[in-house]
Amino acid sequence: MAENQPHSNRKRRRRTKLPAEYIDGILAADRTILAQAITLVESQSTKHFASSQEILQNIMPYTGQSIRIGFTGVPGAGKSTLIEALGILLCEKGYNVAVLAVDPSSTVSKGSILGDKTRMEKLSKHPSAFVRPSPSSGTLGGVARKSRETLLLCEAAGFDVIIVETVGVGQSETVVRSMVDCFIVLLLTGAGDELQGMKKGVMEIADALYINKADGPNYEEALKARAEYNRLLHFLQPATKDWTTSAQIVSALTGTGIDEMWDLIRKFETTVKANGVWEERRQRQMVEWMESLIEESLLQHFFGNEEIRSKFPVKKNEVTEGQLPPAQAAQQLLDLYFKMFHS
Amino acid sequence: MAENQPHSNRKRRRRTKLPAEYIDGILAADRTILAQAITLVESQSTKHFASSQEILQNIMPYTGQSIRIGFTGVPGAGKSTLIEALGILLCEKGYNVAVLAVDPSSTVSKGSILGDKTRMEKLSKHPSAFVRPSPSSGTLGGVARKSRETLLLCEAAGFDVIIVETVGVGQSETVVRSMVDCFIVLLLTGAGDELQGMKKGVMEIADALYINKADGPNYEEALKARAEYNRLLHFLQPATKDWTTSAQIVSALTGTGIDEMWDLIRKFETTVKANGVWEERRQRQMVEWMESLIEESLLQHFFGNEEIRSKFPVKKNEVTEGQLPPAQAAQQLLDLYFKMFHS
Repeated sequence: MAENQPHSNRKRRRRTKLPAEYIDGILAADRTILAQAITLVESQSTKHFASSQEILQNIMPYTGQSIRIGFTGVPGAGKSTLIEALGILLCEKGYNVAVLAVDPSSTVSKGSILGDKTRMEKLSKHPSAFVRPSPSSGTLGGVARKSRETLLLCEAAGFDVIIVETVGVGQSETVVRSMVDCFIVLLLTGAGDELQGMKKGVMEIADALYINKADGPNYEEALKARAEYNRLLHFLQPATKDWTTSAQIVSALTGTGIDEMWDLIRKFETTVKANGVWEERRQRQMVEWMESLIEESLLQHFFGNEEIRSKFPVKKNEVTEGQLPPAQAAQQLLDLYFKMFHS
Repeated sequence: MAENQPHSNRKRRRRTKLPAEYIDGILAADRTILAQAITLVESQSTKHFASSQEILQNIMPYTGQSIRIGFTGVPGAGKSTLIEALGILLCEKGYNVAVLAVDPSSTVSKGSILGDKTRMEKLSKHPSAFVRPSPSSGTLGGVARKSRETLLLCEAAGFDVIIVETVGVGQSETVVRSMVDCFIVLLLTGAGDELQGMKKGVMEIADALYINKADGPNYEEALKARAEYNRLLHFLQPATKDWTTSAQIVSALTGTGIDEMWDLIRKFETTVKANGVWEERRQRQMVEWMESLIEESLLQHFFGNEEIRSKFPVKKNEVTEGQLPPAQAAQQLLDLYFKMFHS
């Protein structure tokens, strides 16, 4: 112990690791270093951007091997409990499972809908699992970027299954859909009532609907809801080519349907790997990610500009009052903006 | 006749009208001048931008008095025939009716799905009607801008009902939804088959679904389809506060349901005028229009830049090959872009 002291002190003096140390640690599946690398990637500080990108670039060849599964559902749908049950099952089957969260609420209200602190206690303690709460600051776009990069870090650290959890607020379902292979919507019995709180079109981006809490006195209702949703899905466009989105029942409490959920996910994987959708979707997701970062930056550069920020409300007001046609208002602001960068 | 010659010659020598002449002509409901003003607004030429915006700014106080109705449906759903039947009914009731089209197909394929040339012959000839084909060039964003401005010109020319027709391609439904008060989706019998070709979530932006061609041997099927769709709508979020989106039947051939369609639209109008949604939605549409023009311009300025155009495919390729993390690729292109405007 005493012998380690000087070494330990040296370590403490150097505040940040070198990118190479992070890379080695991640590839060696060191959980502590993985967690530190995620913190670096999540950092808002521009000085951390270069090193986090260097880490990412170096771990890229080791990514892509997991299956990425997204879960959404309104608060109370039982997402965390179900993900924990699925996660434990998978760990017992010998998989390494990482659970990430995209929680848009924490960026808006500073409170977390997903309740990161206390959730998934049992799974968190499993040696094959890694549970990471949502990055807690920034725009949804920022949270999404960090979650995407965290996902890559987890893959490089050898996780076979990555589960991304979100709640139906704002655009978060679309964002999670755009970073996973298979997207699952959790529902409750109640004949569509809970869909009222979800994003429009959410059923059309789902690869499977699961009626959760299909247990006890709720079981019969769940069967009815399953039939209703299957009827409904008939009218909607499936999210994935050659794959029929269906409604199923599941219970985290009794374990009903959890094994079958994993079977369904594997069947989905086989289908989309065979028809080329898997690879094609992943490539498209990478390009869309890059494009969305560019778009966000351009918009932020414009709308974050001090002069635009002061003029925009004036023009907006003139437009809503009917004093200025929208195209002219837009043109005036654009002229102002571009003039700043040409002078 | 001979006396008019010199005057007529003078007129011919001056190639373009002054904005004031357009404004007077539009406000006097002169159809020829209205049509010319629309052509000016539709012009891609930047030299026409200032005069068309001057016209728009001056007619703004005379806009906003119509009810704006959007129709969408797949090719073959019978949109044009139905709109013509509704239009003639409204003309007979004493309304002035303008029909515009947003046809994204003509911008992509140079062919028109809506088949503007020959459609609505009977309505076109009615003295109370004005049928204008889709602007035939530019991006969907460009087509949308022109259609929005055309809509305002028609309002200033005294049209009480503006019908905007589109087909379910790309984002055109969303674009039309964003410029109208009431949005109607036309369907056929066939248990959801035709929805397969439509945009995801289209039923959730609709204020009414109409099963068209509910006549002859098709009538019973149409009743069944109506029941199915009403069942389905139960599960979806309504597009408009305090308004229940429902499925109805209609036949342009027999006239069944056309009167009732107008009653439903008027009932919708009463509801949303009473609860404030009418005004609130229109103001929001104007602001969104302005914002979308800004966004389009910023993106076009970036992606249209020559250096970006040559570098983007390279970076995109590095990203899809897994050689470069998307955030870094985005940053490299953004650095390149912003450097150009600071040097």
